[in-house]
Amino acid sequence: MKKLVTLKQISKELDISISTVSKAIRNHKEISLDTRKKVQAFAKLHNYRPNSIAVSLKNQRTKNIGVIIPEIVHHFFTTVIEGIEKVANSRGYNVIVCLSSESFEKEVVNMQTLVNGSIDGFLVSLSKGTQAKKDYHHLNEVMDQGMPLVMFDRVVDDIDCDKTIVDDTQAAFEAVSFLLETGCRKIALITTVDYVSVGKLRTEGYEKALQKQGIPIEPNLTIKIEDIENCEILINQLFDSQHFDGVFAVNEYFAVVAMKIAQKRGFKIPDDISFIGFTDGILSKCATPSLSSIAQHGTEMGEISAKMLIDRLEEKEDEFTHLTQIIKTTLVERESTKRLS
Amino acid sequence: MKKLVTLKQISKELDISISTVSKAIRNHKEISLDTRKKVQAFAKLHNYRPNSIAVSLKNQRTKNIGVIIPEIVHHFFTTVIEGIEKVANSRGYNVIVCLSSESFEKEVVNMQTLVNGSIDGFLVSLSKGTQAKKDYHHLNEVMDQGMPLVMFDRVVDDIDCDKTIVDDTQAAFEAVSFLLETGCRKIALITTVDYVSVGKLRTEGYEKALQKQGIPIEPNLTIKIEDIENCEILINQLFDSQHFDGVFAVNEYFAVVAMKIAQKRGFKIPDDISFIGFTDGILSKCATPSLSSIAQHGTEMGEISAKMLIDRLEEKEDEFTHLTQIIKTTLVERESTKRLS
Repeated sequence: MKKLVTLKQISKELDISISTVSKAIRNHKEISLDTRKKVQAFAKLHNYRPNSIAVSLKNQRTKNIGVIIPEIVHHFFTTVIEGIEKVANSRGYNVIVCLSSESFEKEVVNMQTLVNGSIDGFLVSLSKGTQAKKDYHHLNEVMDQGMPLVMFDRVVDDIDCDKTIVDDTQAAFEAVSFLLETGCRKIALITTVDYVSVGKLRTEGYEKALQKQGIPIEPNLTIKIEDIENCEILINQLFDSQHFDGVFAVNEYFAVVAMKIAQKRGFKIPDDISFIGFTDGILSKCATPSLSSIAQHGTEMGEISAKMLIDRLEEKEDEFTHLTQIIKTTLVERESTKRLS
Repeated sequence: MKKLVTLKQISKELDISISTVSKAIRNHKEISLDTRKKVQAFAKLHNYRPNSIAVSLKNQRTKNIGVIIPEIVHHFFTTVIEGIEKVANSRGYNVIVCLSSESFEKEVVNMQTLVNGSIDGFLVSLSKGTQAKKDYHHLNEVMDQGMPLVMFDRVVDDIDCDKTIVDDTQAAFEAVSFLLETGCRKIALITTVDYVSVGKLRTEGYEKALQKQGIPIEPNLTIKIEDIENCEILINQLFDSQHFDGVFAVNEYFAVVAMKIAQKRGFKIPDDISFIGFTDGILSKCATPSLSSIAQHGTEMGEISAKMLIDRLEEKEDEFTHLTQIIKTTLVERESTKRLS
């Protein structure tokens, strides 16, 4: 195997810090264009490859991929893992999963545990804790060591790496537009607190759809749920205080709980109130009535993310710039919404 | 740290194979009582500890626990992992999860991946593939290396290690007895193929409950589902060909699918047909009507299993013989069954 230059050697040779070299190679806008050009030219000349440090440190591949997800009792993440497993196994990689349990500290510990020779690269979906804290040093450190990282679903702009996302704003826009097109005029939104990126983006899509139809946004029609244990209480309060003919929920669990409450209060679904949930899982299919919901295609997201990571590892992807892949969502119509006339 | 004798040294000293020494120490009935006594006495004299090889090989603990589960899109296993995480984190251990995807080969690869310095001990629930093949060499090899192993839920008698199980036969017996006590006379059983240990044990419990009441077992009232994709077709065939007033299903998904089919065919639940499922998850709570089901207390199983493993690792448990802990199940009554009069 041809000897490859390391970030450390480039740093020494050009008298620039490792972190700056790493960012310059990744074409980070924080670094001046001059420095980026100089570092990239040197790196190219000396055959630097993004993961060369990881390779030279370990001298051998583990053929393991590390996955860090916020929680496991969440159908969407389990389908992503299914997709990751599928592609990884077909290409001879094994998958190791750690949970952050939505905690920043656990996410850091997990990355430290796995980076230490157990894996070749990371697939990460951020914890709520990390999103609230906006501290991404653990992700930058891993990348500065030359280990490829792909973020999926819960990503941030501040990290320059490969990403796979669904267009949450657009998906929510389409769902709420569908409710409007089928006759709903007052649509309640059941969402999460704002620091959860997907909750925020889905709220934006909801507002855009209303604005497009010239329908005023009524803040009292929105409830933001932080703790899932309280969701029944908060949804009951919404029913007590407001009248509405449509509900858009940012996950299927909130939607199904809201449907049960509506039925207990004597509302007919979809005649009195229509419901759409986000994430098309087993709950949507098994609910009575079955729930119309937005399929995020978690398996596909897992497959694409794993492919991006393995391509980087196997250096099939030679570009220094990173890609963001957007998964197209689809609205699966079931019994909880009216038909388009 | 006091120098500990290794299995290899005992083997050399007593001129017995390592595998025999390992089995003798674990008090395996395959080994003669004389040999067991001799090896155990020698081991005690020279301060052998079950995990001394692992310790001397690695010279340091990773403080990681490896968990291997058959699948992740299964609410029960995710609750077990929650329980494992809870205890492990509180005692300073990190949890690494690998999926066998019900495949023997993947289970072997996962164990080889993790045993190689990444973890201190294993928590394993067997894949369907391993149960069908009855090949447990990978589990024995890990234990022969002195690495502690705790099996949970899907266990086998042939492996001599710590175990955590629910009494599946008794739980099924109680569920079916409850259906009989509330007036059901013809009870259908929706189960899995026989080589899945829990499916087999639950079938036994079903049969025992009928026998106790002197009700003949009608083989046509039982369907065995191998591939979850086919479950709707098979359940529809059952409704086409048989009459029954109760259904006992070995998981909540089968039960909820059967309830939806019954409702589509115009049956009232529980008046015409009562339903009980196994595993009390989110589906049972969210179904309409909500499903009476057997809570296996997955979180508790995870907590107890993790505690057993960490106690072994930290040598709080000095016994050479292994323990089997039985988790008590409870029947959670909901809307899909009649009340006891």
